[in-house]
Amino acid sequence: MRPFSFQVFQQLLVILCSLSLSFGQPHPLDPLTPSEISAIYTIIKSSQLASAINSTSFGFHYVGLEEPDKQTFLSWHSNPTAHPILPRQAFVILRAGGQTYELYVDITHSCIASQRVRFGNGYPVLNMEEQNAVTLLPFNYTPFVESVKKRGVELSDVICTTFTVGWYGERDGGRLIKLQCFVAGETANLYMRPVEGITILADLEAMEIVEYADRFVVPVPAAGGTDFRASRQMPPYGPRGNPVVVAQPEGKGFTVYGNVVRWANWAFHVSFDARAGLVISHARVRNEDNNDYRSVLYKGFVSELFVPYMDPSEEWYFKTFFDNGEYGFGPLSSSLEPLTDCPPNAEYMDGYYANGDGSPVHIPNVFCIFERYAGDPSWRHTEILIPGKVITEAREEVSLVVRTVATSGNYDYVLDWEFKTSGSIKVWAGLTGMMEVRGTDYSHANEIRGEQHGELVAANTIGVYHDHYISYHLDLDIAGTTNSFVKANLKTVRVSGGKTPRKSYWTTVKETATTEADARVNFHTAAPAELLFVNPGVKTKLGNTVGYRLISSSAAATSLLTDDDYPQIRAAYTKKQLWVTPYNKRDKWVTGLYADQSHGDDNLAAWSMRNRSIENTDIVLWYTIGIHHIPSQEDFPLMPMLSCGFELRPFNFFDRNPLIKTQPFIKGRWAAT
Amino acid sequence: MRPFSFQVFQQLLVILCSLSLSFGQPHPLDPLTPSEISAIYTIIKSSQLASAINSTSFGFHYVGLEEPDKQTFLSWHSNPTAHPILPRQAFVILRAGGQTYELYVDITHSCIASQRVRFGNGYPVLNMEEQNAVTLLPFNYTPFVESVKKRGVELSDVICTTFTVGWYGERDGGRLIKLQCFVAGETANLYMRPVEGITILADLEAMEIVEYADRFVVPVPAAGGTDFRASRQMPPYGPRGNPVVVAQPEGKGFTVYGNVVRWANWAFHVSFDARAGLVISHARVRNEDNNDYRSVLYKGFVSELFVPYMDPSEEWYFKTFFDNGEYGFGPLSSSLEPLTDCPPNAEYMDGYYANGDGSPVHIPNVFCIFERYAGDPSWRHTEILIPGKVITEAREEVSLVVRTVATSGNYDYVLDWEFKTSGSIKVWAGLTGMMEVRGTDYSHANEIRGEQHGELVAANTIGVYHDHYISYHLDLDIAGTTNSFVKANLKTVRVSGGKTPRKSYWTTVKETATTEADARVNFHTAAPAELLFVNPGVKTKLGNTVGYRLISSSAAATSLLTDDDYPQIRAAYTKKQLWVTPYNKRDKWVTGLYADQSHGDDNLAAWSMRNRSIENTDIVLWYTIGIHHIPSQEDFPLMPMLSCGFELRPFNFFDRNPLIKTQPFIKGRWAAT
Repeated sequence: MRPFSFQVFQQLLVILCSLSLSFGQPHPLDPLTPSEISAIYTIIKSSQLASAINSTSFGFHYVGLEEPDKQTFLSWHSNPTAHPILPRQAFVILRAGGQTYELYVDITHSCIASQRVRFGNGYPVLNMEEQNAVTLLPFNYTPFVESVKKRGVELSDVICTTFTVGWYGERDGGRLIKLQCFVAGETANLYMRPVEGITILADLEAMEIVEYADRFVVPVPAAGGTDFRASRQMPPYGPRGNPVVVAQPEGKGFTVYGNVVRWANWAFHVSFDARAGLVISHARVRNEDNNDYRSVLYKGFVSELFVPYMDPSEEWYFKTFFDNGEYGFGPLSSSLEPLTDCPPNAEYMDGYYANGDGSPVHIPNVFCIFERYAGDPSWRHTEILIPGKVITEAREEVSLVVRTVATSGNYDYVLDWEFKTSGSIKVWAGLTGMMEVRGTDYSHANEIRGEQHGELVAANTIGVYHDHYISYHLDLDIAGTTNSFVKANLKTVRVSGGKTPRKSYWTTVKETATTEADARVNFHTAAPAELLFVNPGVKTKLGNTVGYRLISSSAAATSLLTDDDYPQIRAAYTKKQLWVTPYNKRDKWVTGLYADQSHGDDNLAAWSMRNRSIENTDIVLWYTIGIHHIPSQEDFPLMPMLSCGFELRPFNFFDRNPLIKTQPFIKGRWAAT
Repeated sequence: MRPFSFQVFQQLLVILCSLSLSFGQPHPLDPLTPSEISAIYTIIKSSQLASAINSTSFGFHYVGLEEPDKQTFLSWHSNPTAHPILPRQAFVILRAGGQTYELYVDITHSCIASQRVRFGNGYPVLNMEEQNAVTLLPFNYTPFVESVKKRGVELSDVICTTFTVGWYGERDGGRLIKLQCFVAGETANLYMRPVEGITILADLEAMEIVEYADRFVVPVPAAGGTDFRASRQMPPYGPRGNPVVVAQPEGKGFTVYGNVVRWANWAFHVSFDARAGLVISHARVRNEDNNDYRSVLYKGFVSELFVPYMDPSEEWYFKTFFDNGEYGFGPLSSSLEPLTDCPPNAEYMDGYYANGDGSPVHIPNVFCIFERYAGDPSWRHTEILIPGKVITEAREEVSLVVRTVATSGNYDYVLDWEFKTSGSIKVWAGLTGMMEVRGTDYSHANEIRGEQHGELVAANTIGVYHDHYISYHLDLDIAGTTNSFVKANLKTVRVSGGKTPRKSYWTTVKETATTEADARVNFHTAAPAELLFVNPGVKTKLGNTVGYRLISSSAAATSLLTDDDYPQIRAAYTKKQLWVTPYNKRDKWVTGLYADQSHGDDNLAAWSMRNRSIENTDIVLWYTIGIHHIPSQEDFPLMPMLSCGFELRPFNFFDRNPLIKTQPFIKGRWAAT
């Protein structure tokens, strides 16, 4: 059921929008430009709302494109010139005077199209400005200064950062945040040097510390050996292979026109959203006749990244982060470093989001796009049976990768979308960066007494047990919007009666999910099945129903928290890796639109309780990669990348293997030099 | 229990070996050279055995290096110059006069060190010469010629190939083989054009057809659209990205001395075996101080590749192949095609095996070795919390790949071992090539009536349901030979009593497997656990036990055949993905040394029934990648590569992340040109 708050509109103003601004004619799915972000600020500041609430300042918590409805977009796309220009709209979440406002701003007509005060559980994504401000509070808070002194640490070496408080059954106490502090000093790797034993609770609206405790002192782990900067390393240096340089003598094979990428048989739109980060839209692949583009994925993005830690102590129990919903992948997105984050043949795109003041923030190189060649064939065969011949044919696999990196404080997530000429989309997540560690008295494993909730990864340093759940919103539109989810269950058939010397075989029994409940899959307990997303109305020439199949990830952990535990209630969807819901433009975030301090009443599991029909309609696949992380010393002081991914692979989408007619590259020109 | 045959030695001759031949001083693990293979032939032909059995000819079915015992090798390796030269020995399996002979040939001393006649179930690997001979029989067999005529096919376009018969409870009827025939003609893709309805059973010893049936006629699928050769394609051509060329301006980072490969922090030995194909031996990785090499993997290879088909009909029920044990990865290994099978910076190695006559066969380019750069970082971090700084550090991931391709008739398996500077070994299997298809009357999906045991992938063409089980022998020697298998089980702990606002968390409960039964894991039913292979006697400086962890593959299917079905009895190990056994030099093959027509009495599951101790001893991990294949039209006429893999990742093997001190490549020099 939808939470009550969504049904209550305090005010819904439809204001006459008249002034038409010209920002050129962007693609309707293009992200907000810096000019548009500035215009939104101006529209709001000069609105009746601003004067009505008479607040000294607005805090901007989300400013993003309000996309046209899917059917409107598809109609526009089918004939853009004949279609009237689609107005540019934005969805904005503000905090002002202790209230949350939702605004639809019509940028084209320079007005607020609608607005309401939002009631209900949870708060919007934090903004950077308030986080920066709140982390300075401890330095003027005497008990904290004393605590630091007691630990023999220079206050000027201390850096505090924000930790969302979650929800543990409390009544709403306002927008709260916890702070934890670290010691940088000689190292850039402050995360390996926690100041343990202190809890600080602050009120983000009042901008003041409201609770403080210093329960115990343990050593701050030493700085030595923690710095990851090349300039701080001493011989003997670590291992490396010789560099491999890549170049493209025929140039790049892809084009970027605005935000539309075309490559080989693919076309798709790339966008940047302040909460989702990278958004892939309207991904289509050409038929083998090279003419007809057919849709595969209308929308794909990371909907949430849930990271619960497994230490129930006072200083740690609340560490159950929703990186996307609480912090936002916009502010967390890192500028990619050419030649190390992405290969030499990459192109880069910039991103913009609105900061807490409503001003545009520029992230250079927020995405890279490159053609990947990892030295593998896309297919091959050697045929030796034809007399007098040995026929070997192989084709180089060149794919197209779109990459972004979300750095959530300590952890870095390398998030790739890889498009293949075979029609496959491979989605990869690479985990690197730093663990969250707990300070401890122990400096050797044989000293350890009692349960530690983690592993000793360095002296005085416990790598705390935790999970990563990366949930993808995958609005599949397989050859159109009318799709079904079909499980082709593998069923053992026992044979008897002497018809065959075999005693068994397996066959498939196809089962179309009719409602949401049919479609929830836990890979650990489910019987083996091929998971198909099909368009029942579209057949191949041979008469098969067109579809794609999901090849799940080995990283398929589900949550081990009890169902009644608060973080689990908020992230209830993590008990299944796969959910399917009917398409609803508003259902984007598996932890709800207001994930900070949420109560779990607006998450994927809550929506899905309605058990709506999902057969032969527009449906969305929600897929969660899950990883249990038991730290080891190799994760210290920074973790080698751990990669995992899943694949969306055509299944009777094409009439035949689309690669078979691919011409090989001219050999000899590509020899190593 | 060991099968009876292994306990009965008909004769065991220890012959005085005197003549010493000099073949230089190869590494003790090097594969047999062509000269050695020729010498073995000469030794056997001139032996008492040859005159005693007075057979017109020997059929050679296996000729491979008989390695020194592990402790002998390790002792030699620790000080090669001080050690006496290890004699070169070979293990040979012959067929002669209807019997199977096992010979240990001492090449160094030019004599047969021991020999015995082998009794028991099963037969050795087929050789190519007998297969080539038997596939010609139908062309002089009148009923077959009539059958072909009846189908309106030119006999000169027909090609027959061998299909092992398996075992279905029969008493031993000798070495039998089935034949199935295909139509090439206008296409090189004969596998897409089966001549259906005919069964041919031949005796490999008598070299004659012993049973023949022609039950029904269905159309031979058309040739059009099946050929995969570039020269046969017509526009519109298929999709491709632009070529990416790789080069190494500082040269290759690895050296190959004989068969020993050294690269970055790794050293290992590469060998070629007539049954296993690629064998990785004695893989060791350097400590972070760059001095001490410590062992990780004493031996790794594909022990079996089981491919059962799911059509129980007379013409198909027996198709349950052991590609390694019945055909041998030696003869199946393809010459790799430079620039398409492997990248431009690859080096190649050749392989040799003995043919059925005992003569050496040369496979050029049987392996390639290359440094892979796929455009990814090996680690990265962006730090924004330090006032006034944005620190981004990343390192390019360059890994080392050793690749081989086993082409088992229709299917091609790209088998990679990837070594990472992080200490990880990633093992990849890529499936491509052709499916086995069944001819059918149906030319459109809406005509289909009844159970088809597969999917219509083209007109008159059913892609039959089947599985692939790729079983790896992984003799892990983690920092020495004395290892244990530890499951770190993740256990949910419910919290109560108000000590924490949380209601639950998970922790780990480590469980050391004491006997083989403890170590069998089915990932579908097992509780979540980190799977660790540790050396209980070796600790890090911090006091943790050194180990590696297994990150399993998403391709983790287990067999769905009933336990009592004959193919399942023979491949009983396919009900679990993971087994651990105590090390035994003779236990190499999960389907037994004599896999052809085997009865399942000498497979991994049979050995493991002894339930031996596996704690704190030399142990072997057996890991099976499993894939259920439901064909789709994209798999026709040739399948885009499907990749899957697993990872062996250090877990407290190093004192810290060995990459952190890796110096970056000099930037700017590697820009795309």
